Amino acid sequence: MNIKEQLDYLFNPRSAAVIGASSVFGKWGFNILGRMLTCKGDREIYAINNKESEVLGLKAYKSLLEVPGPVDLAVLTVPFQALAQAMQDCVQKGVKVAIVITGGLAEVGEDGEKIEREIVAIARRGGIRVVGPNCLGHFDTFSGFYTVPFLPQVKKGSIALISQSGNSSQSILNHGLEMGLGFSKFISSGNEGDLRFVDYLEYLEQDEKTDVILGYVEGIREGRRFLEVATRITKKKPIVIMKAGRSDIGARAARSHSAALAGSNEVLDAAFKQCGVLRVDELTEMVDVAVALLGQPLPRGRRVGVLAMGGGMAVMAADALRKEGLELPHLSASTMDTINTLLSQRWSRGNPVDPAGDFVSYHILWPMIEDDNFDSVIIIGGVAMTSSFAGWAGIPPSMKYDAARLRRGMERAEVGNLNKTIEMMKKHRKTVIFVTMIWGAKRQGRIFRKLRQNYLEPYDTLEKAARVLARLVAYSEYLGVARRG
Amino acid sequence: MNIKEQLDYLFNPRSAAVIGASSVFGKWGFNILGRMLTCKGDREIYAINNKESEVLGLKAYKSLLEVPGPVDLAVLTVPFQALAQAMQDCVQKGVKVAIVITGGLAEVGEDGEKIEREIVAIARRGGIRVVGPNCLGHFDTFSGFYTVPFLPQVKKGSIALISQSGNSSQSILNHGLEMGLGFSKFISSGNEGDLRFVDYLEYLEQDEKTDVILGYVEGIREGRRFLEVATRITKKKPIVIMKAGRSDIGARAARSHSAALAGSNEVLDAAFKQCGVLRVDELTEMVDVAVALLGQPLPRGRRVGVLAMGGGMAVMAADALRKEGLELPHLSASTMDTINTLLSQRWSRGNPVDPAGDFVSYHILWPMIEDDNFDSVIIIGGVAMTSSFAGWAGIPPSMKYDAARLRRGMERAEVGNLNKTIEMMKKHRKTVIFVTMIWGAKRQGRIFRKLRQNYLEPYDTLEKAARVLARLVAYSEYLGVARRG
Repeated sequence: MNIKEQLDYLFNPRSAAVIGASSVFGKWGFNILGRMLTCKGDREIYAINNKESEVLGLKAYKSLLEVPGPVDLAVLTVPFQALAQAMQDCVQKGVKVAIVITGGLAEVGEDGEKIEREIVAIARRGGIRVVGPNCLGHFDTFSGFYTVPFLPQVKKGSIALISQSGNSSQSILNHGLEMGLGFSKFISSGNEGDLRFVDYLEYLEQDEKTDVILGYVEGIREGRRFLEVATRITKKKPIVIMKAGRSDIGARAARSHSAALAGSNEVLDAAFKQCGVLRVDELTEMVDVAVALLGQPLPRGRRVGVLAMGGGMAVMAADALRKEGLELPHLSASTMDTINTLLSQRWSRGNPVDPAGDFVSYHILWPMIEDDNFDSVIIIGGVAMTSSFAGWAGIPPSMKYDAARLRRGMERAEVGNLNKTIEMMKKHRKTVIFVTMIWGAKRQGRIFRKLRQNYLEPYDTLEKAARVLARLVAYSEYLGVARRG
Repeated sequence: MNIKEQLDYLFNPRSAAVIGASSVFGKWGFNILGRMLTCKGDREIYAINNKESEVLGLKAYKSLLEVPGPVDLAVLTVPFQALAQAMQDCVQKGVKVAIVITGGLAEVGEDGEKIEREIVAIARRGGIRVVGPNCLGHFDTFSGFYTVPFLPQVKKGSIALISQSGNSSQSILNHGLEMGLGFSKFISSGNEGDLRFVDYLEYLEQDEKTDVILGYVEGIREGRRFLEVATRITKKKPIVIMKAGRSDIGARAARSHSAALAGSNEVLDAAFKQCGVLRVDELTEMVDVAVALLGQPLPRGRRVGVLAMGGGMAVMAADALRKEGLELPHLSASTMDTINTLLSQRWSRGNPVDPAGDFVSYHILWPMIEDDNFDSVIIIGGVAMTSSFAGWAGIPPSMKYDAARLRRGMERAEVGNLNKTIEMMKKHRKTVIFVTMIWGAKRQGRIFRKLRQNYLEPYDTLEKAARVLARLVAYSEYLGVARRG
């Protein structure tokens, strides 16, 4: 079987068993079986527990070998001492893929490493591929099958995530869902005793549901193969990687977490660059970049037009963009003329555009999108201004009614303006990044929904926007879409 | 009059007039007068408009000179061509402080600069101090007087903000309020044609309501005096400054925004360091640092204990802390012993503490707070776990009731644990920084309220937490509280 055929049993098994199923809330054998039961569908789900006769309403079998039907996928949550026997049962039963949740193996030292090698050897002899050990499960939103617990409802979409850390992946998934991302597949790869990061990459390369691959990585094994595979994939689908364990103590912690050998950061950075992988520095940045990869055309170069709600934002945007090596060329004469008709004489008369007391509007944005001097435009503030409206203290009571009516009218108008903006982005193949200083619970309502649906969720700092744009430009240059800076 | 007496007329005037008051929604003369009317109290508020007879329900006077009573504070929103006459009226009327909202002055070029110099000269001859021009107003939460529009209700507190940018200040205030900060005073200082950043600093030095001073700065005039004043103040109250205009284009934009001469960044950075000013790199970081300055004792050194919800977070926390030059020493033998009794054998057995599949708990945090090897502790995740509980997909329906009950019980327990933690922070004088991967609208409920009230709002990335801690350590070292690293 090739990797595609093998992992199809992982993502869409006809039957699955939890070895170590538990009725105790909070135990892995409970959390994971509970999750599987809520998305069971037509699958056969079996509970294996050698002490109980029933777990979570299922008949519990003392051993996998007692299960009447075939079992494609086994999830092992038993203590590490019981793993070898459980894996032998899997082989005897003809299991195709085993997810080993259990930790305490290669990541804790030599003794654990020995056990890990042993169970992987048993699996390999029996033709079983192993996910983990020391992992958190996986999901496939299209087959509708989940083993990973502790997540909100996951939206279907084209983002896949491979993570060597369970808790990091939960943060990425949670934050991604908040930022409007949908996911195709997720794998918590753990210690990668058998299946490695690069194996999952190869699978996702062939996965039609996946357009963007995200990876949280502490160490890369089989460096040469990774380079080869990644080079091939990034021509078709972007790969975004967060590499952790860059510091002395971070690398040591990675060893005891996912048994990863961190390797030289300089070598890895050079390798990532060479094969077109987009490296990010923070988990949240991974989500920020993924959103932009879905919502934006790749910029044709590094020339950025900035439209800011005010002068402070204009100054800080320029700082942030310059720090990332991006350029802020002049406005064309025709854009100058147009903006002159829209704003009072006080405006900054250059890029960044600071309306200097007037309000930012889409009417200023549009000529900037059309301006051939720019490959992309950043608009700061001016989005969903009406969202915070009702919350302003100091609207005189006599105006309350008018304010509410005004708000509805402005919201309606903005949806229309957004539609036009999205059309223009497509027509002129321009990247348009939104930034808003609206935080937290206030990011709701019609405008934010519309932005989110189109993967245009506004970033909440200028620095995030600048970093995202710089990644897009780098990828675009790598692919030869953009002139090189 | 000294600066204290002068600016008391700004922050707590007995009477105030808006010259350029307007009935047109959206105009500055409307926005500001509207704001003033909603917090009028016992003050006399006057509307000056030479065309209307009534504005926002007030009798409108054609000129300030027609106002029957005395006027302490005048807010000028008239076009720049009308400023000189308006300021002459202010002098004749005996106004003490004038806020000039109007822009189009020194920030747009030589012509504007000439007008600005002229109106400042008129004011000075008449003994009037000028805020602005090209500014957004101010507030004092204790006198209850506000001129700045577009803000939600501001909570009283001990943070003061001076900002050379109006739009930047609104972002700082909005974000600060979300993170639980309360404010004492705010000044949008604009072009600083008369009153300068350092004047406001001197005033706030003497302000008993203010414990922490935040500043958004594009350029510092009177550098030597600034150095002198800031050196004096930082011994008593921390000053946190965001300096914008650091790049070539950012500096140019600053010139056309607040008429600031950016000056050399290296000189300024050295000056800030010399006088104990905490410099931050992003607006949101200013808020992050302010929260910590209120909620935390200053760390006695750079030794940090890390308690992470999982291994990935442990690795990335180590990376982030090391990047900021902080240290992660070993756990003491006694802390090791205690944690050994609390966690399974799989835990990382070192700093960072990774429970490796077990849950993070306050029982692990407490011995780390007591551990003499650490000056501060960062706890990642494990906070308000119950908040996201109900949202997890995959809790079997049969458990729904139990889950809700469990949630309430856990919440009750956590409030108790938080109380104990806060006591221990005081007793042992330890900094404890919370990080949570819970975002957006979910940062509500009992636990978050409790954290916010105590200025312990969790940061949403490890990198933010590490930067904040590094600022606290730097300030602590400056003051001689911490051993120098």
